Amino acid sequence: MKSVIVKKPGGYDQLEVVDMDIPKLKEGELLIKVYSTSVNRTDIITREGKVGYLKNPILGVEVSGIVTEKCGESSFSIGDRVMGLVNGGGYAEFAIIQSDRAIKIPDSLSFDEAAAIPEVFLTAYQTLFWLGKLKKHETVLIHAAASGVGTAAIQLARHISDAKIIVTAGSKRKLDFCRELGADVLINYKEQSFDEEVLKATNGEGVDVILDFVGADYWNKNLASIKKEGRWVLIGILGGAEVEKVNLLSIMSKCIQFTGTLLTPRSDEYKALLTKEFSENIIPYFENKKIKAIIDTKFSLEDIGKAHLHMESNNNIGKIIINVCE
Amino acid sequence: MKSVIVKKPGGYDQLEVVDMDIPKLKEGELLIKVYSTSVNRTDIITREGKVGYLKNPILGVEVSGIVTEKCGESSFSIGDRVMGLVNGGGYAEFAIIQSDRAIKIPDSLSFDEAAAIPEVFLTAYQTLFWLGKLKKHETVLIHAAASGVGTAAIQLARHISDAKIIVTAGSKRKLDFCRELGADVLINYKEQSFDEEVLKATNGEGVDVILDFVGADYWNKNLASIKKEGRWVLIGILGGAEVEKVNLLSIMSKCIQFTGTLLTPRSDEYKALLTKEFSENIIPYFENKKIKAIIDTKFSLEDIGKAHLHMESNNNIGKIIINVCE
Repeated sequence: MKSVIVKKPGGYDQLEVVDMDIPKLKEGELLIKVYSTSVNRTDIITREGKVGYLKNPILGVEVSGIVTEKCGESSFSIGDRVMGLVNGGGYAEFAIIQSDRAIKIPDSLSFDEAAAIPEVFLTAYQTLFWLGKLKKHETVLIHAAASGVGTAAIQLARHISDAKIIVTAGSKRKLDFCRELGADVLINYKEQSFDEEVLKATNGEGVDVILDFVGADYWNKNLASIKKEGRWVLIGILGGAEVEKVNLLSIMSKCIQFTGTLLTPRSDEYKALLTKEFSENIIPYFENKKIKAIIDTKFSLEDIGKAHLHMESNNNIGKIIINVCE
Repeated sequence: MKSVIVKKPGGYDQLEVVDMDIPKLKEGELLIKVYSTSVNRTDIITREGKVGYLKNPILGVEVSGIVTEKCGESSFSIGDRVMGLVNGGGYAEFAIIQSDRAIKIPDSLSFDEAAAIPEVFLTAYQTLFWLGKLKKHETVLIHAAASGVGTAAIQLARHISDAKIIVTAGSKRKLDFCRELGADVLINYKEQSFDEEVLKATNGEGVDVILDFVGADYWNKNLASIKKEGRWVLIGILGGAEVEKVNLLSIMSKCIQFTGTLLTPRSDEYKALLTKEFSENIIPYFENKKIKAIIDTKFSLEDIGKAHLHMESNNNIGKIIINVCE
């Protein structure tokens, strides 16, 4: 089967389509004929060799497709349309998924739309609700708001928590899109100082929850933007990993909870539980079209290098999809 | 009434006993004739002017004594023996306490013992269970283990969670005491590298929960000592407030939850809820003598400066009590 591997850690030109054997099933697993997969930041970090995420030589952490084989008991049958997180191996014609991590694809969604859901919506759900403990009518600050996770988080915060949603992005085009999804306060970080705007929009109090994809560059401004007893969730380091001079007294006296997270290194049990809760609580919103998968562009498997490059250019709004089979 | 105030922000010599009016009660409050109060780190930080904790000019955040007046409905009566957190004003002959923050003193405990309980046990309870989410049979690392909060945390972790308890302290005398209270692994931080000892004691995995009173000086060693998905609770900065370089990627890839907290600046509602849960779950352990108040030394109100100096010398094991009235 066609599969994408990394020749050696480095740039997008290190990605290569090779022929590999179809993987063998173990108890509790399903074999999926992959229709679509998608590009995630974690793939790029892995490609660069910074965090070796999973033992699979084939990249890709999510798929949509059809069940072609199963091993052991499962609520799924051969022929079912499913989507979900995989332990690597998503950039290929066939992939293995843990049965308890597969989600039935609603009839109204295409395979491309389905491949745009698991990683970003599960991450947004986990960070907003499990880690960020976002409650009804609280205020949330979402950085990189036009990204895959950002666009998912705006929709979840709108429909689940009716939160006040403050977003940052780097262009009017992105911010306009965020407003359509439900964002209330739009901040262009290239033209405005976001901490000042956040304090203006919250009567000087700051926000209850921050979804931080940026890290070091935004450290002090995030600290200024968060409310007393706020929850700050770090899910990306687009602005650098190393913070110079962190003042612990301010974190302590504001009683801040700071949580670093990546979905990929979490345990199988964690992902299964998250998938189950997400399926029950959120999939109905896709069925009735209140929440939607946001797709930016589509590439073929052969153009995987171009797809990575496109994500690295930071111009995408929503997900970058890879069509593996038509 | 005799009361302790701060002349101007600075050292222990800035403390002064002055005469003040007995405070006036508002709805939902009790007036307490104070028998004992105690010294907490938060008093020292306030005395130094680093964090102005409460609007009360009189220092002191906890008392034990007798109810002499009440305003509004309350489950307490005039003459009841109570202990609890106050919004400042504890270092005085009379103090106001919110009725929903008062705890009935078990008959078996003296006023001095009672004054050694609220701040450190509520802090230990909050940090271990509410913030640290310590579960049965997990592993916890408790720094400054012979301190007031440390000795409370050891006992709670032992009796409530049956946790594996790893402690650090600076002398054999302190460590021996910690072992008697229930600590399993003793580390003298002056002679051993605590992160190496922690990894040895946990098969290289690290601990689930850290209670960190030290801050900057221990930053990298704590980061090395914590397990994947660990909860790290910062409740003191004895080793400095400023960390030179923080690597966010390691916090993110280990999925660490880092929470800064101080009990004093928390809201009245938070303290009332914490007090209620603590009273129901933990006071029975004092009644049957499984958990005990740990008292180091006692001073008179007039010697309050000496009491602060004693805490600053870091030689105490457990609480420093102030006898306000015999």
